[in-house]
Amino acid sequence: MELIRRVHLMREISQEARGKGRKIALAPTMGALHDGHLSLVRRARELGDIVVVSIFVNPTQFGPEEDYARYPRDLGRDADLCIQEGVDYVFAPEPQDMYPDGFGTYVDVLELSAVLEGATRPGHFRGVCTVVLKLFNIVRPHFAVFGQKDAQQAVILKRMARDLNLDVELIVGVTVRNEDGLALSSRNAFLSPEERRAATKLFRALEEGRRLIESAGETRGPVVEATVRKALAGSKSLRVDYVAVVDSDKLAPVEQISGSTLIALAAWVGETRLIDNVTATPAAAAVGRSGPDLS
Amino acid sequence: MELIRRVHLMREISQEARGKGRKIALAPTMGALHDGHLSLVRRARELGDIVVVSIFVNPTQFGPEEDYARYPRDLGRDADLCIQEGVDYVFAPEPQDMYPDGFGTYVDVLELSAVLEGATRPGHFRGVCTVVLKLFNIVRPHFAVFGQKDAQQAVILKRMARDLNLDVELIVGVTVRNEDGLALSSRNAFLSPEERRAATKLFRALEEGRRLIESAGETRGPVVEATVRKALAGSKSLRVDYVAVVDSDKLAPVEQISGSTLIALAAWVGETRLIDNVTATPAAAAVGRSGPDLS
Repeated sequence: MELIRRVHLMREISQEARGKGRKIALAPTMGALHDGHLSLVRRARELGDIVVVSIFVNPTQFGPEEDYARYPRDLGRDADLCIQEGVDYVFAPEPQDMYPDGFGTYVDVLELSAVLEGATRPGHFRGVCTVVLKLFNIVRPHFAVFGQKDAQQAVILKRMARDLNLDVELIVGVTVRNEDGLALSSRNAFLSPEERRAATKLFRALEEGRRLIESAGETRGPVVEATVRKALAGSKSLRVDYVAVVDSDKLAPVEQISGSTLIALAAWVGETRLIDNVTATPAAAAVGRSGPDLS
Repeated sequence: MELIRRVHLMREISQEARGKGRKIALAPTMGALHDGHLSLVRRARELGDIVVVSIFVNPTQFGPEEDYARYPRDLGRDADLCIQEGVDYVFAPEPQDMYPDGFGTYVDVLELSAVLEGATRPGHFRGVCTVVLKLFNIVRPHFAVFGQKDAQQAVILKRMARDLNLDVELIVGVTVRNEDGLALSSRNAFLSPEERRAATKLFRALEEGRRLIESAGETRGPVVEATVRKALAGSKSLRVDYVAVVDSDKLAPVEQISGSTLIALAAWVGETRLIDNVTATPAAAAVGRSGPDLS
């Protein structure tokens, strides 16, 4: 494994690899790697001849009041984990190299970026899209692997890739969870033991919403949303930011559920903001998708 | 010469050419080709093994009140000219193929896009940057040639290329002019004979500004600007939009001229809006740039 700190070096490496016909797979991260990231890295390992893990806590996707400064960083440990996973290159550039003086170019995916996370975190997806496009141009991957935990991010980046004619295939890896269901997140490290217990409510509430759609046949989006909200209530250290029942591709609120539906939420657990989501498909639509079973 | 109308075909062609190690040079245009464009095409011919001329009247760079609908289009004639110039591919996509349903991704170069043309034409450079980035991703050129007549566009696109780590070299070709100095422009076709005569004032006024800086030793930006404005006055069919004396790279107004300076203007000649510019460097700075001459 080689640790690359300079943009121009990473470019040279990827150009040379491409020139030799090697397939490059990128797993972009902000470091503080956990098993969720490592599952993406393994996915990248399956897809590419060369695996690049980028580790960059991207300042432009944090709001001024957000946790950029205290976001966990441990490049030494991250590098060790990447070695264990057989990663070829860890690309960990300096902010000044990514955003040199006079930097002023930003990418926006309108509409999709205005809802859910974007409503609470204005400018967040502008920062995400901009840094991901830069990483794509530097690393020039054939495949890029993102996590389903950041469901809206994945939808937005796929739209960006289509709209800008990017020559990269985006892969979305499933959310990795603790045994009690809590989605792995670098921010879980901020939780106190009590908050950690409260945080398990997030996935349980989402699962109630999914059961309502997939098993109980509920088709009214607002009813599903209310059920999830109710399941989150009653904990002093948990405060809901949003619960949304939306179309999986367009992220528009769904009144009448008929196809693949995203149930997404964000909540403050103490001082830590966590997100999670599940996808649910009504039994009828799930059958319809694979064709009628007449046997 | 092959005329390519579909995005996916152009991608395949450029991928194959790159795979064979051929250098691709792109001259992006909106068609209605004149000798100014052809000088860029010849520059591309010198640079690349394969020359692509894109012809696309890009809707996203026109404001709602602007001349998108009446912008001159003559693909047959343009294609003939490209054949004569030895162009390999004319890429002339349909708007629907460039901006499919649900398109929502845009690129902005902040600050540089807010002044001069951007102040009069809000959203113009967002449209330019977005389409140029798309063209770069589709054609994957090693070189892209733009005209100095669109000086601000060239500065903005260079900034975009740097900021987004694009792997393309931007070349700026000199402005081609009629014998009387009027810069070639597809929009000149809209001018009446009287307007055509009035339009010659634009370059004459710019030249007065340049002489003031380069020969008369004037270093006060506002004085140069006033002189250019005065030279433009007195014609009923000519109305100034802006005259600006700015730093050639940062496009910021220059009070005290010391280095390469852009004198740029836009004016309405009848119903047609024309732009032009010259670059001026004070004698002292010009000498300084190439080192002291002690002979």
